[in-house]
Amino acid sequence: MEENAQSYRWSGRVPDWLQRQAMTRGTTLAIENNSVQWTYAELWDRAQWLAAELGAAGIRRGDRVALLARRGTAFALGVHSLIQGEMVLVPGNTRLTPEELAWQWQDAGVVAVLFDNGHASLAQRVLASTDLSMGQWNLEELSGPLASEELHRHSREDIDLQAIHAIVYTSGTTGHPKGTLITYGNHLAGAMGSAQRLGLNKQDRWLVPMPLFHVGGLAVLMRSLIYGTTAVLHDEFDPVRVNEEIDRGRVSLLSAVPTMLLRMLDVHGERPFQGHLRAVLLGGSAAPTYLVERCLKAGLPMAQSYGLTEANSQVATLAPEEASTKIGSSGLPLLFTEVAIMQDGCMVAAGEAGEIVVRGPTVTPGYFGQPTVTVQALQKGWLHTGDIGCLDTEGYLYVLDRRSDLIVSGGENIYPAEVEQILTAHPAIQDAAVVGVTHVQWGQIPVAFVVAVAPGVQQMRVSVEELQDYCRHRLAGYKIPQKFFWVDTLPRNASGKLMRKEVRQWLH
Amino acid sequence: MEENAQSYRWSGRVPDWLQRQAMTRGTTLAIENNSVQWTYAELWDRAQWLAAELGAAGIRRGDRVALLARRGTAFALGVHSLIQGEMVLVPGNTRLTPEELAWQWQDAGVVAVLFDNGHASLAQRVLASTDLSMGQWNLEELSGPLASEELHRHSREDIDLQAIHAIVYTSGTTGHPKGTLITYGNHLAGAMGSAQRLGLNKQDRWLVPMPLFHVGGLAVLMRSLIYGTTAVLHDEFDPVRVNEEIDRGRVSLLSAVPTMLLRMLDVHGERPFQGHLRAVLLGGSAAPTYLVERCLKAGLPMAQSYGLTEANSQVATLAPEEASTKIGSSGLPLLFTEVAIMQDGCMVAAGEAGEIVVRGPTVTPGYFGQPTVTVQALQKGWLHTGDIGCLDTEGYLYVLDRRSDLIVSGGENIYPAEVEQILTAHPAIQDAAVVGVTHVQWGQIPVAFVVAVAPGVQQMRVSVEELQDYCRHRLAGYKIPQKFFWVDTLPRNASGKLMRKEVRQWLH
Repeated sequence: MEENAQSYRWSGRVPDWLQRQAMTRGTTLAIENNSVQWTYAELWDRAQWLAAELGAAGIRRGDRVALLARRGTAFALGVHSLIQGEMVLVPGNTRLTPEELAWQWQDAGVVAVLFDNGHASLAQRVLASTDLSMGQWNLEELSGPLASEELHRHSREDIDLQAIHAIVYTSGTTGHPKGTLITYGNHLAGAMGSAQRLGLNKQDRWLVPMPLFHVGGLAVLMRSLIYGTTAVLHDEFDPVRVNEEIDRGRVSLLSAVPTMLLRMLDVHGERPFQGHLRAVLLGGSAAPTYLVERCLKAGLPMAQSYGLTEANSQVATLAPEEASTKIGSSGLPLLFTEVAIMQDGCMVAAGEAGEIVVRGPTVTPGYFGQPTVTVQALQKGWLHTGDIGCLDTEGYLYVLDRRSDLIVSGGENIYPAEVEQILTAHPAIQDAAVVGVTHVQWGQIPVAFVVAVAPGVQQMRVSVEELQDYCRHRLAGYKIPQKFFWVDTLPRNASGKLMRKEVRQWLH
Repeated sequence: MEENAQSYRWSGRVPDWLQRQAMTRGTTLAIENNSVQWTYAELWDRAQWLAAELGAAGIRRGDRVALLARRGTAFALGVHSLIQGEMVLVPGNTRLTPEELAWQWQDAGVVAVLFDNGHASLAQRVLASTDLSMGQWNLEELSGPLASEELHRHSREDIDLQAIHAIVYTSGTTGHPKGTLITYGNHLAGAMGSAQRLGLNKQDRWLVPMPLFHVGGLAVLMRSLIYGTTAVLHDEFDPVRVNEEIDRGRVSLLSAVPTMLLRMLDVHGERPFQGHLRAVLLGGSAAPTYLVERCLKAGLPMAQSYGLTEANSQVATLAPEEASTKIGSSGLPLLFTEVAIMQDGCMVAAGEAGEIVVRGPTVTPGYFGQPTVTVQALQKGWLHTGDIGCLDTEGYLYVLDRRSDLIVSGGENIYPAEVEQILTAHPAIQDAAVVGVTHVQWGQIPVAFVVAVAPGVQQMRVSVEELQDYCRHRLAGYKIPQKFFWVDTLPRNASGKLMRKEVRQWLH
């Protein structure tokens, strides 16, 4: 049988989703964000208009355009305009430093940037730190489509399922962020797989109180588009407001990470939740048992899941009704997705631990401009996640350890190698190891073990504040180590590879 | 832009659906038929066992196998076993004569036949009227999988979305039935398009009181499989029993044709329906206004639809909530499907009538062994249906006339050319025209206008009974003209083409 990686991807052409929803359910709400409500007809109107603006400014099909926004309407308008213009979205993590974003924009060859009011100055700082010159649009200061401008709009052709929709940056063990290619087919398969697992209702309203620049948020925007349902966007996470939306029966689905649930439960108190929430799709990291128990008690239908950027978010999901019988599991793979466990290049039996590998139509075709890394990550169609897990005899996935070195803090991924690279560039530091420690509110926080250039001398002069301040100019805040431990040496194996496991044991 | 017909089809590989459902929701009911209930685990077990039996008898991947059954469990077992064995299903319309079926089996190169108790003798008669010799299995007399036969089972590989699942025969204007190829991708796209329109619930139970050998019934079996939900199968249509299933809240979806709805309403009386039926997917022919009104009054959520074998059933569907505002419409195209109206090879504007053309991933790749007919039917990916219709400014489809000559009687399609061909083979008949007349119970019934070989003489000797008896040996009962009118001549144009419109006017 053909073992071609290509064959696990879907190909074909489909009518443009936004155009179709605007035509067929034009009065249905597409986006709700604070007091703003956009129907599909209105969103299509705005997206076509901005796509035409971008086109008139010389931005072409296939060009990469960065998006820096937390305001839901701004982000959604950016996403849909780029789809209409057949341009490639490069969503920026607004928590990153200008230097981190500049690296990504240069890597992706970004030719324009869209931003909201809150990130106009960040966009300027990114541009100032690069030699990039590009078109800039403040999404909240657009004149917008006027009724008289009938002709000034751009309408796209069919969607090619293999075309690239977005490049989403994710760091990795190498320390250099990589641009994960996300296709329209990845979105279609994810939407359909998720609908089969969580159900689909024409009246669905899916609340995303998380940033939209991660695949978890972006996927909800795209799924709502494909379903023709409503995406409810909160610009920032406010547990009281999320609880209100649930209790008032205003949302049927919610995406969240464990730390959010914890805060929601804390402010909600003892009383059970009202409304008709069908599932809380829980990503980011595994929920601890006590959180599962509190959710069950409060009547929150939690659906734990395992996902990653390279599989366009959801890979496996535990149905809410299984939450209490399969504690600790991330559930079963989505309908079109295969999950297996590998050790030394071979599949292992149920119960045995190994690397989680994923195959199917939600898997990325690769990393932008990185053919070698792509070949390493995708072998015979199997995405090698680097995460450790096992399957039980019923096929339920248990994630034992995220990419041995990955730290997940408040839903954000921190790749130690990236932080270590910054630390070792400091004149006082010779070697560094960054690991995560458990934290009640954030799940994990990063801490650093550092070796001084001149042991016994240097560490006396460099303060923690100075090191954190040094990091603050180079790293997003959530990546900055909360503690620094000076050590004489770090455990490395014969080939010089850091043995993080041993470092982590120092913390116990 | 690329105008390749291929590109509107989906390609890729997906994990086997039955295996996946058996593994992930093994205890969920797959099939309910009378007092028999099969879970997905049990159905997979049985299907693998029979697939192994067929394989051991020499039937190979890609071989065509006929299925003659009305018993739901038998039909479902046949379908799923052939999928597991990667063989091609040729579902037989059990109302056809042995001669009609023999023609199809020979055309498809059928190598084996599966049947239920009720159709054992029909299968024998088909074989007797051909020179085909083939393996035969009575689906109700199988020993079935025994626990000890652990190894005697066949498990298939991934599903290739472009692989042929079935060959479904449909007659046409030429008078010769054609084998419509149905791919796995056609089913996937249909399932997903339908879920987006009608919603999807893990507890769904979809009742099919219609034959499963038409695409309308077969599609429900395949959709339930893809969703992992329950197909409820009635071997024959009993309006009292269907009403009971609805009123007791035992089904959430129902497939039916207008004549069935009429009988259901008649026996149900004035009281409104109970339960939680989400939609009655109504195919076959447009529902007359008085039927729409009765359904609305009785609380039956009817979803009128337009479909055809070549598009694997559903093309467009009117949502139940639009039934009263868009009376007469078959609704909007499914999410991945495009519908347009053509006249002389050009698309026409909203409101103008013309031929309905359909493009998208549910459209057949063509007719078995008929490259020329396939090229004619599929131009640049557009399936030319032969049906006449128009779109309103909102994109809603109105079917004005099924393939000018098509007669739909009680949900069965009758192609006049096929009947005329039989009639003109009678020694007393020189020429014939068959048209449909409106009938309260069946929607339409066929009547024939015949020209005698020796006018004024022959018609005195050949009785209607004799002609009907002659037809009975050659045509399925529902195709036999209910009335015969002797005429001197039939209206034909210069090129000899029958002008059916004029014939139909004779009836007014």
